[in-house]
Amino acid sequence: MKKIRLFTPGPCTVPEEALLEMARPFEHHRTQWFKDLFAECNTKLKQVFGTTNDVITITGSGTAAAEGAIVGCNPPGSKFLNINGGKFGERWGKIANQFGIDCIDHKVEWGHAVDPAAIEKLLKDDPKITNVMVVHSETSTATACDLQAIGAICRKHDKLLIADCITSAAALPLKPDEWGVDIVVTGSQKALMLPPGLGFVSVSERAWKVIEGNKGQHCFYNNLASARKAMLKGDTPYTPAHLLVRGLRITLNMLLEEGMEKVWKRVAAMAEATRAAARAMHVEVYSKRPSDSVTALVVPNGVVEKDLRKKLRERFGLHLAGGQDHIEGKVVRLSHMGAIDSLDMLAAIAGLEQVLFEMGHKFELGSGTAAAVKVFAERK
Amino acid sequence: MKKIRLFTPGPCTVPEEALLEMARPFEHHRTQWFKDLFAECNTKLKQVFGTTNDVITITGSGTAAAEGAIVGCNPPGSKFLNINGGKFGERWGKIANQFGIDCIDHKVEWGHAVDPAAIEKLLKDDPKITNVMVVHSETSTATACDLQAIGAICRKHDKLLIADCITSAAALPLKPDEWGVDIVVTGSQKALMLPPGLGFVSVSERAWKVIEGNKGQHCFYNNLASARKAMLKGDTPYTPAHLLVRGLRITLNMLLEEGMEKVWKRVAAMAEATRAAARAMHVEVYSKRPSDSVTALVVPNGVVEKDLRKKLRERFGLHLAGGQDHIEGKVVRLSHMGAIDSLDMLAAIAGLEQVLFEMGHKFELGSGTAAAVKVFAERK
Repeated sequence: MKKIRLFTPGPCTVPEEALLEMARPFEHHRTQWFKDLFAECNTKLKQVFGTTNDVITITGSGTAAAEGAIVGCNPPGSKFLNINGGKFGERWGKIANQFGIDCIDHKVEWGHAVDPAAIEKLLKDDPKITNVMVVHSETSTATACDLQAIGAICRKHDKLLIADCITSAAALPLKPDEWGVDIVVTGSQKALMLPPGLGFVSVSERAWKVIEGNKGQHCFYNNLASARKAMLKGDTPYTPAHLLVRGLRITLNMLLEEGMEKVWKRVAAMAEATRAAARAMHVEVYSKRPSDSVTALVVPNGVVEKDLRKKLRERFGLHLAGGQDHIEGKVVRLSHMGAIDSLDMLAAIAGLEQVLFEMGHKFELGSGTAAAVKVFAERK
Repeated sequence: MKKIRLFTPGPCTVPEEALLEMARPFEHHRTQWFKDLFAECNTKLKQVFGTTNDVITITGSGTAAAEGAIVGCNPPGSKFLNINGGKFGERWGKIANQFGIDCIDHKVEWGHAVDPAAIEKLLKDDPKITNVMVVHSETSTATACDLQAIGAICRKHDKLLIADCITSAAALPLKPDEWGVDIVVTGSQKALMLPPGLGFVSVSERAWKVIEGNKGQHCFYNNLASARKAMLKGDTPYTPAHLLVRGLRITLNMLLEEGMEKVWKRVAAMAEATRAAARAMHVEVYSKRPSDSVTALVVPNGVVEKDLRKKLRERFGLHLAGGQDHIEGKVVRLSHMGAIDSLDMLAAIAGLEQVLFEMGHKFELGSGTAAAVKVFAERK
């Protein structure tokens, strides 16, 4: 009985309904059928993102979508403030550099969330800043920032705000219009429960003004203005990965049937249960402000991270992610996104508990799973 | 009995084996399993492309792959000669403009192939040209150029040659190393028989020198140098559409089992049969130098193109493409790529014949299909 249990923070478990939909007879994408499908998905993406803004679909990863947003929002003369507190924050600064964008790369200690007041100070100190990018849920450190507070500051100072919501959209509470988030970037393979291959960008009207007026930008494939122009005709500028759009319709329907508030609660309960289990097992949570979509656990002394993940894979088919860069070998990361519920999360915790115990970490066997059960019982 | 028969020049028919493979339990991509799969595909892509050069896989459409090639090959100081004889040739010039690349856009009349001697003259007239891009099979006009002759000229003048082989790779005879083609660009949804979502670029060593030495290029997501660096570690720089890579293994195996020479012959026979049927039905072939991967037929007087394609779809599930730009409404295009064989092609021809006759076009009913049968019988 060999199972695959994906608890990596992307790709996440794809529901069988979506996989089977994608195996159905294959169709052409320049048809009324696709236009209807695409329009339906675009409407439902707005509902899932909690916005009335257009949501652009790009064939590519979340990085492709982020490139489109960063390059589009930074015409010559603009200044980009990038908040860099992990691997993904770091990547967005690299994109800005690659495209010759004037960029302040504001570093935040890994595992900490940016202090909104620090952003306000930066904006006051340098009025030339035109736009800000933050990572809502930094996957590499499993840390979430206070996007609502940051949105209020950016709105107050009249700056565009781009949010990397790659591991927050459809997982954490997200209200871009209410919070003043101009651009939400995400990818298909996280809480949207699809295989990788699609990136999404929601864009506010004031951001469209900058993007569509940007004549100096060097970006063709990931150009959001071209994508919007095509989308208004029900189309995409280049051939879309329309098989994934077919799967998307299924997963969007699943999310909306559950209801976004309930989805957020389901995810938050899994995160809280994991943290409770960690406390019971004397395992430290890495982040000082943990994201509810992914938890990073500090690997206990005496346990070798690579061996831990290998045993989890081999014994239970449990896939966890390791750490990146200077925290490689020091943490393991468990996702709370994808087509999983409390019992799946319990299974992952029970597997982790058994392997940690077997590897010599000292705690009361059973206490982790028991702590998680209590959280789920309370939060039902 | 509602069938879908895709004779559009991309997406083409995807074999059920590939669709079903992609519906199997979903796995993670940062694993040894994926490294092995990716390495196998990379090796087999070389065999299918007929090259010993690296083949880079990008998550995106063929346009994404072309952007990577064009931007990579044109560091500051380079000069790009783009041969523009259709919609795709036009697009590559637009990419060059978008990225601020010094570009000569050499226009060729639609439906005609570029004369290799004209390229040689351009190279002699402007020694500053560093690289040339041609479309091997221009999908919009269903026209193939003499890539071998152009390769010889570029090699003689020591210029890099980029070939858009989006509708030629795995369909028309292609020998990049022998012919002197430095870069071959293609996409997944044509003769590689997959859904859209992957782009491929093979790169010669002399092209790598330019690309890897290119410090001034504004390209992040579609950056070939980053992709190669990751590929050497068995990986991709950003999350790949690995579901499609799983399907790719299946279709590459199918192509290699058939053998590339036989694949090319199968495709050529379908094209020849279609042209023979057209002659019998008094329908003109649009191109002066037809590609064997796609045929553009001039819609006869008295027949409305939109109605023709609609009837074909409704009555037989036959999907043909229309014309683009100034030949919209004037041609229909039939693909000879994808998981189709002579009997499938005969079915398409028989459907087309019946609908053309019914719509009042004058010819001997049955003559088209009969002409095609004769071609297939001769070429078996």
